[in-house]
Amino acid sequence: MQGTMIYGPRDIRYEDRPDPQITRPADAILRLSATCICGSDLWPYRGNPGVDKPTPMGHEYCGIVEEVGKEVRNIKRGQFVVGSFATSDNSCIICRDGYQSSCVQREFMNSAQAPLLRVPLADGTLVPTNEVPPKELIPGLLATSDVLGTGWFAADAAIVKPGRTVVVVGDGAVGLLAVLSAKQMGAERIIAMSRHESRQKLALEFGATDIVTERGEEGIARIKDLTKGIGADSVLECVGTQESMTQAIRSARPGGFVSYVGVPHGVEIDGRGLFFAHVHLHGGPAPVRRYLPKLIDLVLTEKINPGKVFDLVLPLNQVAEGYRAMDERRAIKTLLLT
Amino acid sequence: MQGTMIYGPRDIRYEDRPDPQITRPADAILRLSATCICGSDLWPYRGNPGVDKPTPMGHEYCGIVEEVGKEVRNIKRGQFVVGSFATSDNSCIICRDGYQSSCVQREFMNSAQAPLLRVPLADGTLVPTNEVPPKELIPGLLATSDVLGTGWFAADAAIVKPGRTVVVVGDGAVGLLAVLSAKQMGAERIIAMSRHESRQKLALEFGATDIVTERGEEGIARIKDLTKGIGADSVLECVGTQESMTQAIRSARPGGFVSYVGVPHGVEIDGRGLFFAHVHLHGGPAPVRRYLPKLIDLVLTEKINPGKVFDLVLPLNQVAEGYRAMDERRAIKTLLLT
Repeated sequence: MQGTMIYGPRDIRYEDRPDPQITRPADAILRLSATCICGSDLWPYRGNPGVDKPTPMGHEYCGIVEEVGKEVRNIKRGQFVVGSFATSDNSCIICRDGYQSSCVQREFMNSAQAPLLRVPLADGTLVPTNEVPPKELIPGLLATSDVLGTGWFAADAAIVKPGRTVVVVGDGAVGLLAVLSAKQMGAERIIAMSRHESRQKLALEFGATDIVTERGEEGIARIKDLTKGIGADSVLECVGTQESMTQAIRSARPGGFVSYVGVPHGVEIDGRGLFFAHVHLHGGPAPVRRYLPKLIDLVLTEKINPGKVFDLVLPLNQVAEGYRAMDERRAIKTLLLT
Repeated sequence: MQGTMIYGPRDIRYEDRPDPQITRPADAILRLSATCICGSDLWPYRGNPGVDKPTPMGHEYCGIVEEVGKEVRNIKRGQFVVGSFATSDNSCIICRDGYQSSCVQREFMNSAQAPLLRVPLADGTLVPTNEVPPKELIPGLLATSDVLGTGWFAADAAIVKPGRTVVVVGDGAVGLLAVLSAKQMGAERIIAMSRHESRQKLALEFGATDIVTERGEEGIARIKDLTKGIGADSVLECVGTQESMTQAIRSARPGGFVSYVGVPHGVEIDGRGLFFAHVHLHGGPAPVRRYLPKLIDLVLTEKINPGKVFDLVLPLNQVAEGYRAMDERRAIKTLLLT
């Protein structure tokens, strides 16, 4: 087959790769229905940090099971499945507590920007649907694999619930789906921080009630203005930079909740500032597996359409253009057709 | 009257001070039954940070109401009361959510290492008892004002509950009372990190089930050994240094809860480390007012005796020796008799 490799900053190649094989008895091989490019893929693309050798890319996937290892019990050949970017046995004490993305056997997926994919720990990682879903639902189902699951975790970790005022920092695909998630959880007011018109529009469509274009100190002041001077109940940090983290912590009210779901890059949190902010802080790699059954159901019943974040669709062999478009912010998120 | 002032590092003076007066209509004046020295008082005592001018000291107090301002409704002359180190109106939106120590009208108390004390926002800050309590319960009641309330918040913020494994980092008075609090909340296992024999003994008396003497990497490894390799459910950071914060975060299991209740001094939290630790982090100035009614009741009914942390009792005019003894770790906590 062919697959996507990164060789260095802005050097993405779609090239010959060995077909994946069952290497461990808990593995499955999938033929992907679609895959995509993640905001986090832009970090190595921009060389921060760079890769030290050619590295396969992609960790969002859904598709049809082609083959399973001999220990696989629940996942069957021919099923349509979605899996998380983190593998999990779904049975260890950490998984049972709902933190499958820190499973004691966890591996982070790669190699998914390709037509075929090996998934370790298939029984604990993959969630099958009852039937092969119609083609038009594939983008939404693919979104549950990471970008929606991560936005959902942002809202869940910040204890979004009916009546709450929620701020979403970041208007990337995760931030936009964090808006959708907050709406699903019944938030009364959802303030999206965005200065890009097309993203503002999608945020409003997903349930944002207010748009704030200011950033930094001005952004914090604007949130205080909108929240009786005290800050928001829940603030969802969906970027991963020092500026966004500081802004998130300082936008929450004392006793409020701040979540962060993008891998922090160069972020240091000042202990004293956090202490007097008096907030709850929770984040990490989203335990997507915890949410997959519910999210898949919401997509299949068409209660939500997270697939709208894909505003660029390309064939897999044009993956390099997909990266370029996202890097230049011409696209929110690129869907890759296999 | 006379009262306690700090002039610089290790320069504590008990000297003439003006008697406190009602200066605002919500104030009350108390005649203190006892007061004490806080672990946090040692920061300026050690010059970290130093004071830039002579500064009154003390923020833990209980006593008899001598006088109230004309807007005070609930607190009456002659009542015995306990108050928090942070004043609160107990009616703003932040107070109603239980975060009185971040009340919109909050002031941090000082001047309490003296026989008389002015307390602002008396109705929202002070909690009266039905009767003047017997003398032998005064140390325990005084402890509710900060050190117990802070230890209790450490346990509450780290979601200690029946069945949980809890680690307490720090064997000062707050850490020891965090052990007592965790025990009251039904923790199954309480691991106290301490290398001082007298403090280990008190920790065991308060409910610790295990003592760990190692620190840093070795301490973290020891906690992992004791928790099936994954870390504790709840870790209570009761020190406020970089080492203790790092140790706390890395001793918790993914999905676990870390609280921190001492003002952080020079603490920077690495964003990426926190992300992959996958913990919940919550702390800040303890909202003691939230807990006071319950804690006062536990002391009055003699279900707990937090007064045991006072292992040195001095008359107020020997306050400087009280600081010295705590600085040199000859005493856990000094009670000052008025």
